[in-house]
Amino acid sequence: MENCVFCKIIKGELPCVKIYDDEYTFAFLNLNPVNQGHSLVIPKNHSEQLLLNHNGDIHHVMDTIRKIVPAIIKAVNANGWNLQVNNGKAAGQVIFHTHFHIIPRFDNDNFKKWPHKEASVEEREKIRDRILEEL
Amino acid sequence: MENCVFCKIIKGELPCVKIYDDEYTFAFLNLNPVNQGHSLVIPKNHSEQLLLNHNGDIHHVMDTIRKIVPAIIKAVNANGWNLQVNNGKAAGQVIFHTHFHIIPRFDNDNFKKWPHKEASVEEREKIRDRILEEL
Repeated sequence: MENCVFCKIIKGELPCVKIYDDEYTFAFLNLNPVNQGHSLVIPKNHSEQLLLNHNGDIHHVMDTIRKIVPAIIKAVNANGWNLQVNNGKAAGQVIFHTHFHIIPRFDNDNFKKWPHKEASVEEREKIRDRILEEL
Repeated sequence: MENCVFCKIIKGELPCVKIYDDEYTFAFLNLNPVNQGHSLVIPKNHSEQLLLNHNGDIHHVMDTIRKIVPAIIKAVNANGWNLQVNNGKAAGQVIFHTHFHIIPRFDNDNFKKWPHKEASVEEREKIRDRILEEL
């Protein structure tokens, strides 16, 4: 799509440090890493976010992730990794082309989870009922 | 797997507030939500984390996610959502059965991203070379 930064990266019209490329997917090192080896995996077909993509594209993305993550982990000697997809501005999405963050993690890198607190069975059942109405 | 909390939830040996269940996948509301509607989607086949699962199972999980997330978003009236998978203790994983977090997000819920900073082309190329050696 015109004016999409990631579409331009795929086409080679903008630079990136590429680590993987096949018929359906493309992966490169994030310019602004949270940790060493922080990579982005994207479907080549443009879509704004995950729900708007074709099922098949997402399967290919997951296959690519499973193929390249072991190499990323070994390359930076990580102890774990997070997969993250931000969908929508409210979720922190900045580039509106579906992308999967691969974030290598290290013991004691001290990134904190977001705060959470227990929800009662009643609260959860109320939300479940609303979800089931929409399903 | 014996002693796996999520395997017990799937089998009905531990309680949960279920929102979806099919041949390959299972989804329920998180007991400790970050936001209303925070759900977990899991493959029924036990695996400790994403890289150790069968490809097919992960495809089914992605299909389920794409099926149920629109209903979750409508039910809680969210403005966006995050997909997160924590792999390994260093990445914040607590239950060692692969699980995908669906976190509804709201404008101004103020959850911050982890800090990141720009990496030079040289730094990224050095890491890329190590990744390509492992691929």
